[in-house]
Amino acid sequence: MIRVGIVGGTGYTGAELLRILLRHPQVSISAITSRGEAGQPVSEVFPHLRGSLDLCFTEPNPDALAACDLVFFATPNGTAMQTTPELLGRGVRVIDLAADFRLKDVALWERWYGMPHQCPELLAEAAYGLPELNREAIRDARLVANPGCYPTAVTLGFLPLLEQQAIDPTWLIADVKSGVSGAGRKATTGLLMAEVGESFKAYSVSGHRHAPEITQNLKQFAGVDVELTFVPHLVPMIRGIETTLYARLTDTSIDLERLYAERYAQEPFIDLMPGGHPDTRSVRGANLCRIAVGRQGDGGAVVIVQSVIDNLVKGAAGQAVQNMNLMFGVAESTGLEGLALLP
Amino acid sequence: MIRVGIVGGTGYTGAELLRILLRHPQVSISAITSRGEAGQPVSEVFPHLRGSLDLCFTEPNPDALAACDLVFFATPNGTAMQTTPELLGRGVRVIDLAADFRLKDVALWERWYGMPHQCPELLAEAAYGLPELNREAIRDARLVANPGCYPTAVTLGFLPLLEQQAIDPTWLIADVKSGVSGAGRKATTGLLMAEVGESFKAYSVSGHRHAPEITQNLKQFAGVDVELTFVPHLVPMIRGIETTLYARLTDTSIDLERLYAERYAQEPFIDLMPGGHPDTRSVRGANLCRIAVGRQGDGGAVVIVQSVIDNLVKGAAGQAVQNMNLMFGVAESTGLEGLALLP
Amino acid sequence: MIRVGIVGGTGYTGAELLRILLRHPQVSISAITSRGEAGQPVSEVFPHLRGSLDLCFTEPNPDALAACDLVFFATPNGTAMQTTPELLGRGVRVIDLAADFRLKDVALWERWYGMPHQCPELLAEAAYGLPELNREAIRDARLVANPGCYPTAVTLGFLPLLEQQAIDPTWLIADVKSGVSGAGRKATTGLLMAEVGESFKAYSVSGHRHAPEITQNLKQFAGVDVELTFVPHLVPMIRGIETTLYARLTDTSIDLERLYAERYAQEPFIDLMPGGHPDTRSVRGANLCRIAVGRQGDGGAVVIVQSVIDNLVKGAAGQAVQNMNLMFGVAESTGLEGLALLP
Amino acid sequence: MIRVGIVGGTGYTGAELLRILLRHPQVSISAITSRGEAGQPVSEVFPHLRGSLDLCFTEPNPDALAACDLVFFATPNGTAMQTTPELLGRGVRVIDLAADFRLKDVALWERWYGMPHQCPELLAEAAYGLPELNREAIRDARLVANPGCYPTAVTLGFLPLLEQQAIDPTWLIADVKSGVSGAGRKATTGLLMAEVGESFKAYSVSGHRHAPEITQNLKQFAGVDVELTFVPHLVPMIRGIETTLYARLTDTSIDLERLYAERYAQEPFIDLMPGGHPDTRSVRGANLCRIAVGRQGDGGAVVIVQSVIDNLVKGAAGQAVQNMNLMFGVAESTGLEGLALLP
Repeated sequence: MIRVGIVGGTGYTGAELLRILLRHPQVSISAITSRGEAGQPVSEVFPHLRGSLDLCFTEPNPDALAACDLVFFATPNGTAMQTTPELLGRGVRVIDLAADFRLKDVALWERWYGMPHQCPELLAEAAYGLPELNREAIRDARLVANPGCYPTAVTLGFLPLLEQQAIDPTWLIADVKSGVSGAGRKATTGLLMAEVGESFKAYSVSGHRHAPEITQNLKQFAGVDVELTFVPHLVPMIRGIETTLYARLTDTSIDLERLYAERYAQEPFIDLMPGGHPDTRSVRGANLCRIAVGRQGDGGAVVIVQSVIDNLVKGAAGQAVQNMNLMFGVAESTGLEGLALLP
Repeated sequence: MIRVGIVGGTGYTGAELLRILLRHPQVSISAITSRGEAGQPVSEVFPHLRGSLDLCFTEPNPDALAACDLVFFATPNGTAMQTTPELLGRGVRVIDLAADFRLKDVALWERWYGMPHQCPELLAEAAYGLPELNREAIRDARLVANPGCYPTAVTLGFLPLLEQQAIDPTWLIADVKSGVSGAGRKATTGLLMAEVGESFKAYSVSGHRHAPEITQNLKQFAGVDVELTFVPHLVPMIRGIETTLYARLTDTSIDLERLYAERYAQEPFIDLMPGGHPDTRSVRGANLCRIAVGRQGDGGAVVIVQSVIDNLVKGAAGQAVQNMNLMFGVAESTGLEGLALLP
Repeated sequence: MIRVGIVGGTGYTGAELLRILLRHPQVSISAITSRGEAGQPVSEVFPHLRGSLDLCFTEPNPDALAACDLVFFATPNGTAMQTTPELLGRGVRVIDLAADFRLKDVALWERWYGMPHQCPELLAEAAYGLPELNREAIRDARLVANPGCYPTAVTLGFLPLLEQQAIDPTWLIADVKSGVSGAGRKATTGLLMAEVGESFKAYSVSGHRHAPEITQNLKQFAGVDVELTFVPHLVPMIRGIETTLYARLTDTSIDLERLYAERYAQEPFIDLMPGGHPDTRSVRGANLCRIAVGRQGDGGAVVIVQSVIDNLVKGAAGQAVQNMNLMFGVAESTGLEGLALLP
Repeated sequence: MIRVGIVGGTGYTGAELLRILLRHPQVSISAITSRGEAGQPVSEVFPHLRGSLDLCFTEPNPDALAACDLVFFATPNGTAMQTTPELLGRGVRVIDLAADFRLKDVALWERWYGMPHQCPELLAEAAYGLPELNREAIRDARLVANPGCYPTAVTLGFLPLLEQQAIDPTWLIADVKSGVSGAGRKATTGLLMAEVGESFKAYSVSGHRHAPEITQNLKQFAGVDVELTFVPHLVPMIRGIETTLYARLTDTSIDLERLYAERYAQEPFIDLMPGGHPDTRSVRGANLCRIAVGRQGDGGAVVIVQSVIDNLVKGAAGQAVQNMNLMFGVAESTGLEGLALLP
C-alpha cells in the first residue's frame, strides 16, 4: 500500500483526489491537512464522502507528512514550495497540483506568480507530470509538477502537429473554455451562481498564467520558438474544459487522422474522434482527453483541434493519480477506470 | 459471470445500466437491443462509453435474450409485459425498470397506464425491488419490478415512521422534485433546455402514476389505509430527486433519530443525516439515499423528512443492479461502490 | 417627478430597483449609497446599466437623503431602522425592502432577527406593502414595509381561501422554492455556482424568518389562529420563486376557480391559471404573481395552490415600485408594464 | 400606427418580436400566423404573454397579410421567399428574420441552404439589415434581410478594424459561442436539457452557414478579399452570444480604443468597454452589442475583440424592430429602451 498525505484538502482538487484515492486498491490515506478546517471531519465539508472516510482535517504537521510515501499538495500556488525541500530530504515523494514547479525558468515564474521562489534549485529536477509527454521521467521522479488544466488540454491537442512540424509555429491560437470549478472553492462574489450562471465571458485577455506553461511545453517538442495567443473563457457549468486550437498547416496533404492515431496509439487516456465534436460531458468524472481534428480554408489549410477534459480529473486529480501510479510502479490505469457520468 | 441482456438501451436508464455493469466484475453484457438504433454502435449514441464497449444495438431477438441469465428492461411502460412471460418460461430472470409489474392491482394498473395488461397473472409473483423493504423476496424472485424513482425516495422516507405507527396516516404529503433526466430521452419541446432551464414548476397536480405505487407501499407496512397528497416538480438540473415529506406525529415524545438509525442500521445504501439538509449532488452518480428528519409546530408535532437520491441510480439503474446482486447471490454492493461526483 | 434615494444599492434588489426606476417616467434618482463602493460608478458594479446612469455610489448622507421625496432601503436587516425615524421626521417617506418593519410584534421580531429594534414605536404605523391586501393603507403611509419574497407568494396563494374560511386553518403547509438570487449578493462559499448549481436541497427546516411574517398575514385575514408548516428550498436557477401550498377544504363543494377570480378580479398584477402549472420563467423580470389551483384526495378535499413570482420583482423591487406608485398617486402600473423575458 | 403581421410566431424569435412589439407605442399587431398552432391562443403557447395579447394563431392568409404595412417572417429558411414577391407587389414591406435574402450570390445561397431560390431577382434589392453598416439603405427598403445572430456579433466586432485596413485580412479567426435558444424551438433530442446542460462543445467545425454571410459583410467594407476561420460552440445557457475574434495588426502603433470610439460614436446600440470583459448577461433582453478590444503578442501585434449580444434581441427580433423603426421613420430606439435583465 502507498501511504498518502494530502495537504490542502478543502478545495475541489483535494475532494477529487479523495474521491479517486478512496477507491484505489493500493492506497491508504494517512493524513489530510487544512489549516482552516483542522479538527473537522472531512465528511462534514464534503458530504458525498460520508461513510467512506473517517478522517478529520489536521494541521499541516511535517512529521505526520514525513511518514507518508507520497504527499499531494492541493494547495494555492506558493504553498508546496515551502515544505517540499524538507519532505524530499526525508525521503517522501511529492506531487504538486499547483504551479510551484511547472516552469523551468525561475524569473518567468516569479513574474507570473508575483512572489520569490523558495526553492528554485528544484525546478530543474521536477518532472512535468504529463505522462503522454514525459512518462519515463515521471517514473523516476521524486518531485512531479502536475500540469495546469488548460495546459493539459492545449498541449495534448497541439502535440502531434508540432512534433511533426506540421503547422506554422509563428501563430498558434488557443481559445479555451472552462467550467467554474476551475476557479476553485473560494468565497468571492464573482463566482456566485447569480453572477456566473446563464452567462458567458472571456477573461484574462491580456495574459494568463497558463500561457507561459503551455509555451514552455510547445517549444520543447516543436524544437523551435512558438507564438501562442491564448484566451480563456468562463462557461456556466461546473466541470469541463474545451479547447479550440487554430493553426495553419505547412503541408495541406498531411493525413491528420493518421498523425494523431499513431502518436496516441498506446495512450490509455486519450480518445480520438476524427471529424467529431467531443463534448465535455463525455469526460465528466473520467481521466480522459478526447480529441477531434477538423479543417477549414482553401485546401484545408487551417487545422482546428478540439480537446476536452474534466478539469478536476485529467486536468488535476486524475492526472495526479496517473502520475502516482507511474511513480510507484502500479498499473497506470489503477483507480482511474471509472466511466464518465452522462447525462 | 452473469450473462446480461438489456432491452431498450438508448434511454438514460439504459445508459446508466451500461455505465455500472461495464465495471461490474461478475457481469458480461451479451446483448443490447433497440429497434430504432439497431446496427449502430452503442458508443455512437453514448460517447462516454467509447472505448469501453464494442457492442452494437440489435433488434430485440427472443433467442438471443433467452441465452442470457438475466434481462433488464429499460423500455417504456407496456413493453416488458410483452416478452417477460416467454423469457421466464425459458428460464431467464427479468428485472423491469419500467412500471409493468409494480402494482399488484391490475385494474388500478390499467387505469393509470391506459392499456390492458398482457400478463396479469405475473403481478402477484413479481417481487417489488426495493431491497430495504423486500430483500428476501428479491433473492428468490424470477421477476423483479424495479421501483419508480419517486416511490423509492418517498417510501424510504416514510418507512420507519409508518412501520412504527408514529404518524397519522390520514394525511401524508409528499412534495417531490426531480431533475429533467427523470422524464427520459424523448424529443419533445417541453424538455428542451430553452424551455426547462432556469425555471421551476409543479406538474401533474391532479394526479401522477407514482402516487398509487407509493400508496401501495405505504399501506403494506402501515397495515392501515393511508391518504397521500403527492405533487411532483421539475428542477432545472439533470440528475437528482429530493422529496420533502410532511406528516403529524401521533406521539411527540418519539426519538426520531433513533427510530431511523435502528431501522436502517444494516442498510448499505442509506445514509442518515439527522438535522441536516441533504443535497442531491451528494448522491450524484451514487447508489445511495440520504435522509434527514426535522420538526416544526407546537411541541414538534409536524415531522418533515427529506430524502435525496440520484433518480438514475438508486432511483433506477443502480437499484436494478442491487437487485441483480441479490438475485444472483453476489455481494449486494458489488459494482455499486462508486462515490458521488461532487462538485 | 418623484425624487428618489436608494440606500444600499449594490445588492440584487438595489440593482433591480435601478433597472425599473431608470425607465419610470415620473422618477428621478437623486442618490444611491453604498459604504463599500462609495465613489465608484454604479455602472462598474452593474454593467447592464452602462450608458443609462451616470451616478456614482456615495456614502450614506442624511442631508442628501433628506432632499428626496422617498428613500428605498435595499439594505441588510437592521439598517433601515437606524435612519428611518430621522428621515420621516424630515418629511421623507420610506420603503424598506428588508424586514425591519414587517412584524408588528417587537418581541417576535427581536427573537427572529437577533437584535434589539431601534424604533419599535414605528411598527404599528408601518404599512405592510402588499397592495392586494392593504392598498388603502399604503396610499397614505409615510413608512411601508415591503414584504418578503416568500411571504408575498404564500400570502397571495392562501388569501382567497382563508378570507372565505374555505380551509382548515389548523394545518397549512407551504413548500416553497427559490432561485439563488434570493440569498443576495454575498461572497459566501455556499452560494458558489460549483456548490449550488445542478443540485437541489431544503434549508432552514427547523424554522425560517419568513414563517412568522406569513403567519401574521394569514391570521389577519383568517380572523383565527393558523398553524403553518413552512419549508424553503434552493433551486439551481437565478430568479424565481414557486410555492406549493396544501390545505384541507372545509367544504368540498366550493368553486375554487370562481373564488380566486372574484377575489383578484381587479388586481393588475395577479394572473390566474386554473388547472394550470405556472412556471417561474413566465414571470421572469415581470411584476406579476401567477396562481393555479388544483385538488387531490377523496372528493377533492385537499386543495393545492401553486403561485410563482420573480423574487426580485413582485417579491422585492417591483412591489416596492408598485407601493411607491400608490403612495405618490401615480397609476399603479407605471414603470411596471414590462413583459417577462422568456425563454 | 404601423400595422404589423408576423408569419411563424411559434418560435423564439417570434415570441421575442411579440414581447417587444406589444410595448411599442406605434405598432398594432394585426396577425400572427402558424400552420401548426392555428386556432390556438398565442398566450397558451407563450404564457408570459398572458393578459397582454388576445390574438390566436391563424393560418397564413395572403389577404390578411396584405392588409399590413409590414410583415415579419420569423420562419425557417426557405419560407419567406415563397410569399415575399406577392406581398411586395401588394405594397407590403417585409423583414425576413431568416436567411432567404442575406446572401447576394444566389449560387452561394443555394449551395449552403440546399434548395433553389424562389425569387433570386430580389436578392440585389434586399437591404442587409445591420443599421451600423447600412442605415440609409434600410430606411428606403421594401425588403430587409435581418442578419444572422453570429454575423451581427462578428461583423460589428471586425468592422472598425477592416474599414481602416488595420488588420491582415488573410487570416481572421472567429471563435463564437451561443446559448441554446439560437438553435430554435425544435423537438430534437440534441437540444434536451439532459443533453446540452452542464456541457460545452464546438459544432459545425467543417463549415457553418453563417460563415459566407460574414465573409460577404467583411469583404464589403474591407474592400479586399478576406479569409475567415469560423467555429461555433454551444453554451449551456439559454440566451446570449459571445464572439472572440483574432487578427494580426498591420501597424501595432494604432490606437484601438480611439478607432472603435470614433466609428461607433453615434450608435445607440453599441457600447464599448475597452480593456473589459463583457459578459452575455449584461445584454440579456436588451438590443445592444457590447465590444471590448485587447491585445497579445510581441508589441501587441495580435488584436482580440470580444463582442456580446442577446441572440434573440440584437441578434434577431430587436434588430428587426430597429430596422422597422428606420423603415417607418420612427425614432430608432423606440420600443428598444429596455435594460438588460441582470442577474
